[in-house]
Amino acid sequence: MSLRDEIFQQAEVLQELLKTEWSHVLEITDEIRKREIKYIFLAARGTSDNAGLYVKYTLGINNAIPVALAAPSMFSIYHSPPNLKNSLVLSISQSGQSPDIVEVVEEGKRQGAMTLALTNKPDSPLAVASDHVINVQAGEEKAVAATKSYTAQLFSAAMLSASLSENEVMYHDLQRVPEFVSQVLTLETLVNQIVELFYYMEQCVVIGRGYNYATAFEWALKMKEMTYLVAEAYSSADFLHGPIAMTEMGFPVFMVAPSGQVYPALLHLAKRLQEEKKVNLLILSDQDKILEYSAAPVRLPAGLPEWISPIVSIVPAQLFCLALAKLRGLDTENPRGLSKVTLTT
Amino acid sequence: MSLRDEIFQQAEVLQELLKTEWSHVLEITDEIRKREIKYIFLAARGTSDNAGLYVKYTLGINNAIPVALAAPSMFSIYHSPPNLKNSLVLSISQSGQSPDIVEVVEEGKRQGAMTLALTNKPDSPLAVASDHVINVQAGEEKAVAATKSYTAQLFSAAMLSASLSENEVMYHDLQRVPEFVSQVLTLETLVNQIVELFYYMEQCVVIGRGYNYATAFEWALKMKEMTYLVAEAYSSADFLHGPIAMTEMGFPVFMVAPSGQVYPALLHLAKRLQEEKKVNLLILSDQDKILEYSAAPVRLPAGLPEWISPIVSIVPAQLFCLALAKLRGLDTENPRGLSKVTLTT
Repeated sequence: MSLRDEIFQQAEVLQELLKTEWSHVLEITDEIRKREIKYIFLAARGTSDNAGLYVKYTLGINNAIPVALAAPSMFSIYHSPPNLKNSLVLSISQSGQSPDIVEVVEEGKRQGAMTLALTNKPDSPLAVASDHVINVQAGEEKAVAATKSYTAQLFSAAMLSASLSENEVMYHDLQRVPEFVSQVLTLETLVNQIVELFYYMEQCVVIGRGYNYATAFEWALKMKEMTYLVAEAYSSADFLHGPIAMTEMGFPVFMVAPSGQVYPALLHLAKRLQEEKKVNLLILSDQDKILEYSAAPVRLPAGLPEWISPIVSIVPAQLFCLALAKLRGLDTENPRGLSKVTLTT
Repeated sequence: MSLRDEIFQQAEVLQELLKTEWSHVLEITDEIRKREIKYIFLAARGTSDNAGLYVKYTLGINNAIPVALAAPSMFSIYHSPPNLKNSLVLSISQSGQSPDIVEVVEEGKRQGAMTLALTNKPDSPLAVASDHVINVQAGEEKAVAATKSYTAQLFSAAMLSASLSENEVMYHDLQRVPEFVSQVLTLETLVNQIVELFYYMEQCVVIGRGYNYATAFEWALKMKEMTYLVAEAYSSADFLHGPIAMTEMGFPVFMVAPSGQVYPALLHLAKRLQEEKKVNLLILSDQDKILEYSAAPVRLPAGLPEWISPIVSIVPAQLFCLALAKLRGLDTENPRGLSKVTLTT
């Protein structure tokens, strides 16, 4: 199975995940309600850390739960963990192997916190250490660059958010995600053409905000892993607080801008970048107006609810990175310097 | 006053800050103890957000307080703030002007949380909105790139951490910081020479871990602001989870590696980067062994305690960015596309 195959499995993986794991998510929700949870303490690395950004927004906005991202070194190196008594310790890891993430969970347990793992390996050390496990059920992921396990992690978090909110509309939205993912997979031919415009680039920035801040980080990470380009992710606001200085004519800027609450901020930035800086803009959006600022517009499906849009908008980004890696003659299955499981302490 | 003048004022600014603000910090500490604070909810942007990373490590490791970084868009755009009742809402801003940061503080107050601002402008909207204010007293900062206000923010956070811990050794360490800063300011001539080795670079990564994770981010930000280069910050662990793929022979990697708990992890990475990848390493450290892997070693003072090292190690990094900007003939006082106060919502 190739990386491309794994990308194309995503609609089916999410469909299955909702069907088989939803009732288990409802049980976990009951348990969360019984506890006096003041905040979520989240431990993850790499791609899973980007899934953590989505957790922060969806549980923050829809469930009013603050999310603190763990610094694993406090546990594994400094041995001075913070007080976690009133937290839900949530870990995210495809392999469930990384010792530093396991250590955060074990410390949470020692302190009496509730622990929940989102992982693709329900028999991993991380799963064994956790009170509760959501099996993201992405199936075996052979390619080093994570794709389907990422969208399955996001979807699991979205299920948790919908379940905690008891909001029927959110549950309805979840059911529509696999179809939206199928739709963006049909963009492959267009994306393969657009990639040619960026064949020579050496660096780029990726901009998203709100829910899609996660998408910006994950797109940038895939770019680094698969094409070895320097790619940096920003929120549109942070970008204005300094890094905008580095852009100049022709600088490649990728923007994730579906309809939603943060769309006006991105529209404003796109206009400025196009008119004042004359950068080379690639934009993912369902909105005509912002797509006009893009030399390389990629149209997202109409009617995509903002809160689940990150699960859909990352897919054309994955296709973009795959196409660019192929065009450049790189090994898409085993990028240099990386292994599927990274053990850090 | 030039940017260089502001960099060279730092030892004096910190000396004054400790003298005049320490007793006020003790009062704020008393107030924090009276409250049932479960975690800190931190709001900041740009350089101040990097100071927030230091807050996360020093208050986490020395005071066992978890720190959650706010996503301002949840307040200002989504209007769905998380529950902040049991938090200390801590804001950091040089100017105290940014509306989105003020909005986080106002929401915290509405929910009954204690609010504390670290700012250089004690009459700013942010200070007015906050219950308590630590005036970081950096004096007027004219250069767009923040330097002395950053080290003053870090030092204020270190004072708060020492005060909360009631640890005499920590207070003693604080008193030594201005002298350490004076020592690294004498590295200017060396740094001006080293910069020539990096004259042609177009991109780089900056690596730190633990306390100096903040230094990596702040160094990368200064590089972007002042030299318009693409510079990305990583922890040594996150770097191994993907981005290491983009390095190749001669790729510039800057590393902040003073003595301390995380030093062995950085030593291991430096060895790998030098031997396997043959990257171009610039290392800041007081340790002979790691400096041997560096084509451009910059020696930090001996005996620098790890927890305050970020206040010292950023100074040669500031000098590096200033020197590179000058060498490239750029405007160091007013970088293109930036203004001193950035108003984002």
